Amino acid sequence: MSEHEQTTDEIKLSDVEIDDGFWSPWVTRNRDVTIEYQYEQLEESGTLENFRRARDGKEGGFQGMWFQDSDAYKWLEAASYELAKTDDPALRERVDEVIELVAAAQEDTGYINTYFQLVEPEMKWTNLNIMHELYCAGHLIEAAVAHYEATGEESLLDVAINFADHVDDVFGDRIDGVPGHEGIELALVRLYRVTDDERYLDLAQYFVDLRGHDDRLEWELEHSDEIGGHSWDDGALIPAAGGGSLFLDEDGEYVGTYAQAHAPVREQETVEGHSVRAMYLFAGVTDLVAETDDEELFEAMKRLWENMTTKRMYVTGGIGPEREHEGFTEDYDLRNEDAYAETCAAIGSIFWNQRLLELTGEAKYADVIERTLYNGFLAGVSLDGTRFFYENPLESSGDHHRKGWFTCACCPPNAARLFASLGQYVYSNVDGSLTVNQYVGSTVTTTVDGTEVELTQSSSLPWSGEVTLTVDADGPVPVRLRIPEWTTDASVLIDGEEVDQSGEEYVELDGEWGGDRIEIRFERETELVRAHPAVESDAGRVAVERGPLVYCAEAVDNDRPLHQYALASDGAIDAEHRNDLLDGVTILEADAKVPALDGWEGTLYRRDDETDTESAQLTMVPYYLWDNREPGEMQVWTRVE
Amino acid sequence: MSEHEQTTDEIKLSDVEIDDGFWSPWVTRNRDVTIEYQYEQLEESGTLENFRRARDGKEGGFQGMWFQDSDAYKWLEAASYELAKTDDPALRERVDEVIELVAAAQEDTGYINTYFQLVEPEMKWTNLNIMHELYCAGHLIEAAVAHYEATGEESLLDVAINFADHVDDVFGDRIDGVPGHEGIELALVRLYRVTDDERYLDLAQYFVDLRGHDDRLEWELEHSDEIGGHSWDDGALIPAAGGGSLFLDEDGEYVGTYAQAHAPVREQETVEGHSVRAMYLFAGVTDLVAETDDEELFEAMKRLWENMTTKRMYVTGGIGPEREHEGFTEDYDLRNEDAYAETCAAIGSIFWNQRLLELTGEAKYADVIERTLYNGFLAGVSLDGTRFFYENPLESSGDHHRKGWFTCACCPPNAARLFASLGQYVYSNVDGSLTVNQYVGSTVTTTVDGTEVELTQSSSLPWSGEVTLTVDADGPVPVRLRIPEWTTDASVLIDGEEVDQSGEEYVELDGEWGGDRIEIRFERETELVRAHPAVESDAGRVAVERGPLVYCAEAVDNDRPLHQYALASDGAIDAEHRNDLLDGVTILEADAKVPALDGWEGTLYRRDDETDTESAQLTMVPYYLWDNREPGEMQVWTRVE
Repeated sequence: MSEHEQTTDEIKLSDVEIDDGFWSPWVTRNRDVTIEYQYEQLEESGTLENFRRARDGKEGGFQGMWFQDSDAYKWLEAASYELAKTDDPALRERVDEVIELVAAAQEDTGYINTYFQLVEPEMKWTNLNIMHELYCAGHLIEAAVAHYEATGEESLLDVAINFADHVDDVFGDRIDGVPGHEGIELALVRLYRVTDDERYLDLAQYFVDLRGHDDRLEWELEHSDEIGGHSWDDGALIPAAGGGSLFLDEDGEYVGTYAQAHAPVREQETVEGHSVRAMYLFAGVTDLVAETDDEELFEAMKRLWENMTTKRMYVTGGIGPEREHEGFTEDYDLRNEDAYAETCAAIGSIFWNQRLLELTGEAKYADVIERTLYNGFLAGVSLDGTRFFYENPLESSGDHHRKGWFTCACCPPNAARLFASLGQYVYSNVDGSLTVNQYVGSTVTTTVDGTEVELTQSSSLPWSGEVTLTVDADGPVPVRLRIPEWTTDASVLIDGEEVDQSGEEYVELDGEWGGDRIEIRFERETELVRAHPAVESDAGRVAVERGPLVYCAEAVDNDRPLHQYALASDGAIDAEHRNDLLDGVTILEADAKVPALDGWEGTLYRRDDETDTESAQLTMVPYYLWDNREPGEMQVWTRVE
Repeated sequence: MSEHEQTTDEIKLSDVEIDDGFWSPWVTRNRDVTIEYQYEQLEESGTLENFRRARDGKEGGFQGMWFQDSDAYKWLEAASYELAKTDDPALRERVDEVIELVAAAQEDTGYINTYFQLVEPEMKWTNLNIMHELYCAGHLIEAAVAHYEATGEESLLDVAINFADHVDDVFGDRIDGVPGHEGIELALVRLYRVTDDERYLDLAQYFVDLRGHDDRLEWELEHSDEIGGHSWDDGALIPAAGGGSLFLDEDGEYVGTYAQAHAPVREQETVEGHSVRAMYLFAGVTDLVAETDDEELFEAMKRLWENMTTKRMYVTGGIGPEREHEGFTEDYDLRNEDAYAETCAAIGSIFWNQRLLELTGEAKYADVIERTLYNGFLAGVSLDGTRFFYENPLESSGDHHRKGWFTCACCPPNAARLFASLGQYVYSNVDGSLTVNQYVGSTVTTTVDGTEVELTQSSSLPWSGEVTLTVDADGPVPVRLRIPEWTTDASVLIDGEEVDQSGEEYVELDGEWGGDRIEIRFERETELVRAHPAVESDAGRVAVERGPLVYCAEAVDNDRPLHQYALASDGAIDAEHRNDLLDGVTILEADAKVPALDGWEGTLYRRDDETDTESAQLTMVPYYLWDNREPGEMQVWTRVE
C-alpha cells in the first residue's frame, strides 16, 4: 500500500504531550503499571497461548472467553498509543513480538479468530450474534491503525487489511449480516482514513445500513443446530432477569434491541440494549456521517444523544442501569445501588461524544466527555492502577469492590487505551480554530490552516479553575476556549488584559501569537444538583458537584450510616485540600442533619413531633476515589432537607 | 371421653356477639361470601377429593400441595366458629359432611394425611422437615376443638384425639423429632384444655423442648434417599435468594433458623426464620407457659416479642420482610416495596399477642393486635371478600394485586378463621376484671368470679374515637378499659360523670352495674410517624396514622407519581369522611410539595437553587383499602420536608 497522506490538519496523538498535576500520575501509572500488568494477564489468561496454538496449526485447547483475542488487540492499541508518544524500545520489542504472533496466526485467507481456528474451524461466520468475529476484527483494525500511526510501520496494518479484505469478500456476498456486537464500523472508517480505500468506508456503511433490516440474526435463532459457538438460548451466557436469554422475549421471539437491531439505525428514537454495543455503533455511525454527510444518520445521532443525555445518563456520565443485559432500560430509570453503568460503556460514550464534538464543534459534547472522564470512567480504575470496576453503582452497601481481572476482561484494557490516548481529547481543530476542549496540562504542536502553532497549557483542574495557556504561532491562528458547563463565571486575560467574552460555549480569540500568555479563571462553587423529577431513585436527594467532579460519601469518613444524613439545602459546605489523603484530594464537609438517637431505645415507631434531629457534618470525597480505602457504604445522592 | 368442665371464667366465642359499623360488614361477608367461596375452592383444588380417595382406599391421584389437608381443617375451624355464633342448619350440614369424610379417611391407627395415604403409604413420619404431617395434625386438632366448643359434638374431636394419641405413641418413642412447620404445639394445648388429658400438654412440651436440641431434621438432610416426600435440597420448593434450598447454608450444612431450630427455644434471642412458623411456635409456647408457669420460657417469649416489635415489625404490624424464605432477616430490615409481610404471619402475630395479652393483661399486646388487625391483616382481603394478598408490601409500583386463590392457599382460610373468631379478641377476663381489649361494637354475656355480667359496646372506631358501653351485672364486677397507644387523651364518663383515670394502659372501673352507661372518648389526631433511625428504607419518610389506621397514597387519587410528593412536616392534613367511597372511608388530604416541572424540559440535572417546588395535596386512604380500585402505585412511607 501507499503511504497515507494527511489531508486535514487533524491533531494527532503524537502532537500532544500531557504534563498535568491531576492526569499525569494516571497516565504514567497506566504506562508503567497497568499496561505491564495487563500484558501479564494476557499471558496468564491464555490469550497469547491461543494465538500460539493457532500459529502452530493446533486443534482445541482454546482458553477463556471466545472473544478473548480482543484483549490482545486492545492491549496492542494501548501500547501503540504509548509508542506514539515515546519510543520505548522495550515496549516496542514486546509489541512487535505480539504483532508477529498475531500475523503468524492469521490464515492465508486473511481470517483470524483463534476460537474458531482452534475449536470449530468449519463454523466460521455462522454465529454472528454471539461469537464476535467481527467485533474482534474491529479491535484488530483499531490496534493496527494505532500502531501504524504511532510507528509508521505496516506490520499490523497489513494483518488488519488482509482481514478487512476477507470480511469485505464474505459480507454482502456469501453472507448478508451484521455483527451482534458492534465495533467494526468505527474501525473500518479508521482504516479508510489511513488507507483512503473506499471499500472500507462502503463496508462500514453496509454494516450500519443493514442493521435493523437484517433477518440473519433471527435466522440464527431458528437454526441453532446449524451454527457454531454458543447457543442462542443459553441463558448462562446472557441471562435475562426472568431467566432464559435476552435474545428472546417471553414468547421466544427474537429481540433485536439488545444489539440495536430493533429498527434501522436511522429510524431509532431511543438508546436501547447493551450499552457498550450502542456506544460503539453510534461512534462508528458518527464517523460515517463525518465522511458522507448523511443528514438522516446525523439527525438520528443527535436524537439518540438527546435521549441518552437528557433521560438515561447518570450524573457521573455512566450509562446502562441494568445488570442483566448490561444496558439501557427506560427513560429516567437511574437506580443507584443496582446501577450497572459499565466502565466500558462510559468509555464508549467518550468515544461517541468525541466524534460528535469533532463533527460539530459544540461544547455540550465536551461537557459530557469531561463529566464522564472525571467520574464514571475514572472510578473504574483503582488508585494503584491494578484493580478495576466493571460496574459503577452510585450507592453501595459496602460489598462492591474493584477486582484485578475478569473472566470477561473487556474493561481493564479499554481503560488502558483511553488513558494512553488521553491527549486526543484535549484539543481539536474545528473549522480552522485550535480548540481547547479539556483543561489538561499539556503542550500541543500542530498546524492550523498551514500555520504552525504551539500551545502550552497548565491547569489546576479539577481542584480549582485556573488555567494558563502560552501560544506561539507563525501567523494568525484563531483559538477557541471551551467554557465548561459547571463554571459560574469565566474570565480570560491575554497578557494581563481582560478579554470581553460573551459566548456561551466558547471564548473565541483571534490573534497572532508570540508567546502570549492567556490566563483563564473558571469560577466554580460547590453545587447541589437535582435530578429530573421523574427520576424516582433521586427524589428528595441531591448530588454534590464541585467543578467537574461528582462527590460521594463513604462510610470510612462518617460515623453514622449514610442513609441517616440529610444535607441542609442552604447549609455550608467547606472544602479542604488534603495532600496527605488519596494522592491529594479536596474533601468536602457539608452541614447536615441526622436523627437524634435519644428516646429511640426500645422503640421502633414514634410520632414525628417527638423526634428530633441534630447537626452533623457529612464528609465527601470525589466519586472516582471511592473504594480505595476501607470497604464500607458509599452514596452519591444524599437526602436533602 | 367425659365432658370437659369449664374451670375458669374464660370468655368463649359464643359469649360475644359482634354488631359494629366497621367490622360487621367484614364478618358478615366472611360468613356469607368467603366461607362459601372457600368451600368451593376446597372442591375445585381437589382437597376434598383427596379425602374421598383416602376414604375409599385408593392409591395415587393426590392433588395440590402436600399439606393441603390443612385447608379443609382451617375451613372447618372457620365454619365451626360461625356455628358457635349461629346455628345455621345448612352450614352445619355441610360441616358434618366434611367431618364425616375426614373421619372416614382416617386410618385405624389414628393416622390421617391424604398425601402419604395416597402417594407414599410406607413413608409416613420420615420427612418431618417438609412434609407437614404434624402441621396438618395441628390444624385438625384446632378445627376439632372449635367444632366441639361450637356444637358440643365430638364427631371431629374424636378424630383429633385418635390422631393425637397416635402422634403421642409415635413421638418420643419410635421417633424423636419436631415438626419442620410448627402449629401442633398450640393445638395440643387447646386439646388439653378441652379434654384435661395431660398427655397432650406433655406432648406439646416435648415438641417445644426438643426443638433446637434435635438432630432429626439434620439427619433427614443426610438421608434424603431414605425419606419420603420432597427432597431437602429441592430448590424449587423452598428457593433461597442465591439458589439452592434455605435448609442448607453455602457449605451445604443444615440451617435450623428457617424452622426456629437454630437454638433451644428458651435460649433464642431474636425472631428468626419463616415468620408463620415462628408465630405458631411462640403462640404454642405461650400457651404452655400459661399452663406450666415455665418462667424461662416466659422470659424467652418476652425477649423475642421485644425483638420483633422494636426491631422487626412493619408499621402495619406485618412481619417477615424476605420473600425467599417468607421470613425474618435482620434488625431494622424493613424494606417496603419488596416487603413480604405474609398475611398468615400477621394472623400468627395476632394469635401470639392474644395469648400474651391473656397471660399478662398488658395492653401493649392488645396494641399490636389492633395495629395488625386494622392494617397488616385487613389489607390481606379484598373489599368483596373473594381476593387475597399473600404478600403485603408497603409500597408498590402497581403490579401487586390480590388473587382469588393460591397454589399454596394458606392465607385465605386463615383470614376466614380470624374473621369468624373476631369476638375472641374483644374482651378478656383478666384476674377477675372484665377487660375491654378492642373497641368493636358487640355484646358480651359472661360470668366474672361467679357474677353474671352483660356489657354492650358501640364504637365509632376507626373513623373516630367515641365508644359507649352499657353494663349490667348481678353484683360488683371490675371493668378495665384499654387506652389505645394512639390516643392523645382519653375521657371516661359514667352516667354523665367524668371518671378520674390516671392509668397509662387501662382505665380501671370498680362498681356495681345496673345498665350504667359508660361514655368514652379517645382523642386522636392525624399523626406523622417516624421509624427508628436505623431503618434505611424509611429514612426521611413518615407514615401517616389516624387512630388505629395506617394510611397510604394510591396513584388513583393523585396526579403525580407518588415519589414526587413530600409532606410538609407541619402542614395541614384534612380528613373527610366519604360514604360514597370504598364502602365508607375517611380520606386524608395532606399539604405536600412536589417539584415544579418548569425548566426541566430537555434537562436531566440542574442546580438545586435553579429548581423549585410547588404546593400540592397528597390524598391518602387507609392502607387496608389499597388495591380495591384501579391498579397503580401505592406507598405508605412518604418523604417529608
